[in-house]
Amino acid sequence: MSYYIAKTVDYNFNKVVEKVTSELKKEGFGVISEINIQDKLKEKLGVDFKKYLILGACNPPFAYEALQKEDKIGTMLPCNVIIQEHSKNQVEVAAIDPVASMQAVNNPLLADMGKKIKSKLQKVIDAI
Amino acid sequence: MSYYIAKTVDYNFNKVVEKVTSELKKEGFGVISEINIQDKLKEKLGVDFKKYLILGACNPPFAYEALQKEDKIGTMLPCNVIIQEHSKNQVEVAAIDPVASMQAVNNPLLADMGKKIKSKLQKVIDAI
Repeated sequence: MSYYIAKTVDYNFNKVVEKVTSELKKEGFGVISEINIQDKLKEKLGVDFKKYLILGACNPPFAYEALQKEDKIGTMLPCNVIIQEHSKNQVEVAAIDPVASMQAVNNPLLADMGKKIKSKLQKVIDAI
Repeated sequence: MSYYIAKTVDYNFNKVVEKVTSELKKEGFGVISEINIQDKLKEKLGVDFKKYLILGACNPPFAYEALQKEDKIGTMLPCNVIIQEHSKNQVEVAAIDPVASMQAVNNPLLADMGKKIKSKLQKVIDAI
């Protein structure tokens, strides 16, 4: 089982970030964290890296329910969606597959939720 | 296998946040994202929730190496460390276990790194 759902598109990087954010919103996810890996690696290690963003997507009603059923689930929140530029106008989007990443959680109360979140993230990727 | 490494201590919440941040630093991790779940749930859903912080911990040399070996690993970065208040001066810290969470990754190049990161996070938890 893969741990992500991915798609490569031929738009420019910023356009993809905008599109991902807006499609996430349609599925009820807000972006509650944003990590610019290219900037961080430059700042901390002085190395050049491709454009690479980690967006932390959170669907508040699902997060609230998950936290009540499994109080350590915050170690796996939010759901990350990454956007990386392989070359100009070759940009890949990948969302974590929560069913795969939560394999070790072993809480049957969350199994169904994992599937629902995966289906929402699949819709986001399909719509890019 | 559990998906986290946890410990409950009897300090106050803010003191624990400070201690976690400083112990992470000793092991080479900077905190590159911080999500205040209590505030987010109040803002988005109007519900009252306990004090609950998600700190995103990143060790830049390890992150750089991991990203070069597995370009979708950003879906699992940074390593989350959560801090939650069960009651006054009963505060639990839990770090993700990267060996458990990366089970689905199936990249032998990363297996050793997962163990090294786990050992560093274990030291952080032990030192709280």
